[in-house]
Amino acid sequence: MPNQYRNLAIFSIIVVIILGASGFYFFNAHNQDLEEKPMGEIAANEADPAVWGIYYPKHYESYLENAQNTAKPSHFETKPYMGPLYAGLGYADEFNEPRGHLYTLDDIREVNPKRYKTGAACNTCKSSQIPEIINKYGEDYYLKSFEEINSQLKHPIACLDCHDPKTMDLRISRPALIEAFERQGKDITKATRQEMRSLVCAQCHVTYYFLPETKKLTFPWDKGIKADQILAYFDEKNYSEWQHPDAGTGLVKARHAEYEIFMGSTHQSAGLACADCHMPYVKQGNVKISSHYWQSPLNNIEQSCTVCHREGIDWLKSRVKDTQAKTKEIQDIAGEAVVQAINELKVAKETPGVNQELLKQAQEMHRKGQWYLDYVMVTNGYGFHNPTESINNLGKAIDYAHKSIKLAREAVQKAS
Amino acid sequence: MPNQYRNLAIFSIIVVIILGASGFYFFNAHNQDLEEKPMGEIAANEADPAVWGIYYPKHYESYLENAQNTAKPSHFETKPYMGPLYAGLGYADEFNEPRGHLYTLDDIREVNPKRYKTGAACNTCKSSQIPEIINKYGEDYYLKSFEEINSQLKHPIACLDCHDPKTMDLRISRPALIEAFERQGKDITKATRQEMRSLVCAQCHVTYYFLPETKKLTFPWDKGIKADQILAYFDEKNYSEWQHPDAGTGLVKARHAEYEIFMGSTHQSAGLACADCHMPYVKQGNVKISSHYWQSPLNNIEQSCTVCHREGIDWLKSRVKDTQAKTKEIQDIAGEAVVQAINELKVAKETPGVNQELLKQAQEMHRKGQWYLDYVMVTNGYGFHNPTESINNLGKAIDYAHKSIKLAREAVQKAS
Repeated sequence: MPNQYRNLAIFSIIVVIILGASGFYFFNAHNQDLEEKPMGEIAANEADPAVWGIYYPKHYESYLENAQNTAKPSHFETKPYMGPLYAGLGYADEFNEPRGHLYTLDDIREVNPKRYKTGAACNTCKSSQIPEIINKYGEDYYLKSFEEINSQLKHPIACLDCHDPKTMDLRISRPALIEAFERQGKDITKATRQEMRSLVCAQCHVTYYFLPETKKLTFPWDKGIKADQILAYFDEKNYSEWQHPDAGTGLVKARHAEYEIFMGSTHQSAGLACADCHMPYVKQGNVKISSHYWQSPLNNIEQSCTVCHREGIDWLKSRVKDTQAKTKEIQDIAGEAVVQAINELKVAKETPGVNQELLKQAQEMHRKGQWYLDYVMVTNGYGFHNPTESINNLGKAIDYAHKSIKLAREAVQKAS
Repeated sequence: MPNQYRNLAIFSIIVVIILGASGFYFFNAHNQDLEEKPMGEIAANEADPAVWGIYYPKHYESYLENAQNTAKPSHFETKPYMGPLYAGLGYADEFNEPRGHLYTLDDIREVNPKRYKTGAACNTCKSSQIPEIINKYGEDYYLKSFEEINSQLKHPIACLDCHDPKTMDLRISRPALIEAFERQGKDITKATRQEMRSLVCAQCHVTYYFLPETKKLTFPWDKGIKADQILAYFDEKNYSEWQHPDAGTGLVKARHAEYEIFMGSTHQSAGLACADCHMPYVKQGNVKISSHYWQSPLNNIEQSCTVCHREGIDWLKSRVKDTQAKTKEIQDIAGEAVVQAINELKVAKETPGVNQELLKQAQEMHRKGQWYLDYVMVTNGYGFHNPTESINNLGKAIDYAHKSIKLAREAVQKAS
């Protein structure tokens, strides 16, 4: 009998241990990071990812995979309305999707020069050397020419942009984000690690503008980060980035507002960060690391989505595609409406004695409509980062664009 | 030592049993149904729920809870644009949200008589006696007066509408759904049990119309069940339910298309049925049953949503509210735009020598815009049954409404 008890006890203990261990494994698999152990110290301003690679070879290997992302299709292929919207900007001549982060410097050097006429600030998200350069020049950095800064750059976006070389902790290296938080009365150093896993991305994956006098790179977040709030901020400042040559409208340009649209989404409010989907844990040889190959999670659903969603890859892909198709359909409608608004404004503007007050109102509606459209259209993810908010914004774009058309026509009809 | 082993064995066995039992409980809690055992047989056409209640007292008790749902707020309170849209229909005078299913007969007897002028068919989803009555009269049922049928009715929606009294299996009792499947080349008797857990609801929670000659209740699904497809069906048939007195537009009326909009949604494509959220398993005394108190899952999130979603009630509620607010905002914009289209059409229609061709085009745009708006607006759930599709449809409504406005104005400008 005692022997039976012993065997039973051993068996039961094994069962308990297996259950416990698998729980521990599952818990841990999604919480571990940086299993690689450094074998020395990296210099405080080391911008060269290859040097970091000596100490963190697996992460470096993962980072180098970004070289595979070489496609840069033109936005115009799928969004023919983009050209007319951006008339007067370099974007109207050329607007391609970017290649992987390894190519940030190559790409900006190849881009139509009209695109970086603002100056030095256009280098800000292109190289890991920028924080040191900003440190060196201070606010003068923003007033320098694009070439003066660009000629000093050797390394694209890399390790130093997000990591402290001593502790490997996530770190904000770009002043614009820190200052945007300060103006909102928030201290970014109080951010949790999980928040940091989005905020390091938010250094660049946000909409921004340049202060008119100082050319300083600034995030227009003082009233909040949503499309309505950012537009209200620009309106209050009476700020326009450019005047549309055909419509005569003072417009603001939206830029890849991934962070802004993601905030408040279902995924974000459930506790996820950018890195949860875009930097999933992957096996790199015998080590498990957070992938540093930044890409669409659709390319590695097994590592990204299926950590939480158990419904299978095909189903997950079909859901994303469904959301993106529903967004694109409404975006296309909005695109056509805004282009029509531009055409009607051109007619109105060229009409002798056009009613100026109505023309002005029509341009205000065009400004709003194009803003809401642009905010969704240039944001990566084709609406998926926040489906309801994206389509909601596009609905507003359609409404404002049509209101602009009507007012432009009224301005012509009431010409003196 | 043996004693120590014994204690350890007993402890370990207890742990294993607890773990196993909780697994079994969780597995079982979501898979069991109808724990009540019948103690006799219910007659094949027994429409009285109280008789079923003798055999299934717990289910009957749950069904009687529907009496608690006594609110019937007017839709006009939150959607002031509804009145002008429905001009010419009884809906324009009175349109309240319905009370619980126990009140289907009371409510229709109290409703403004303009609402059921079509006749007998308006009783079809109000009483469990209807299947037998349709059997008795055949196609003549639809040609009878509302009162002739209504005066025969004693029982509201009840057990017989969805259940086979002998086997308790789910069963389709309404011909319109069976026939709609047939016209799509589908055999509803081949539906899985999980599909049936939506299809019994789809007997009534769908959009429908009455065939012009025979007044037969018909689901307009021959081209598919989505807003675009249903509109294409009506357009092909050149069918209008009524002509808007101000706009002169031939319109079609959407009705609570819960089944249609839910199909293809994230929840449905993940395998859920109506009953999963609206009829969650609940404890009724010492028995676990599928709730027959049909209500918003927001009223019992603990039983409905949290079976799958573990993020907490407050979070779940806030997500639903966020989706509904984003839908309502765009719905309000669409509502305003369609009302403006109606006003402009009225002006155009009353303009002597108005350009008839342009007026006709403007009315076609109004028909489309109002359809997409109505399809979302009268569907329960405030967009939540399929958020992206709902807002997508509203985006189209805004676009079509504005196109109608522009064409109506052009028709006036080009008056001969």
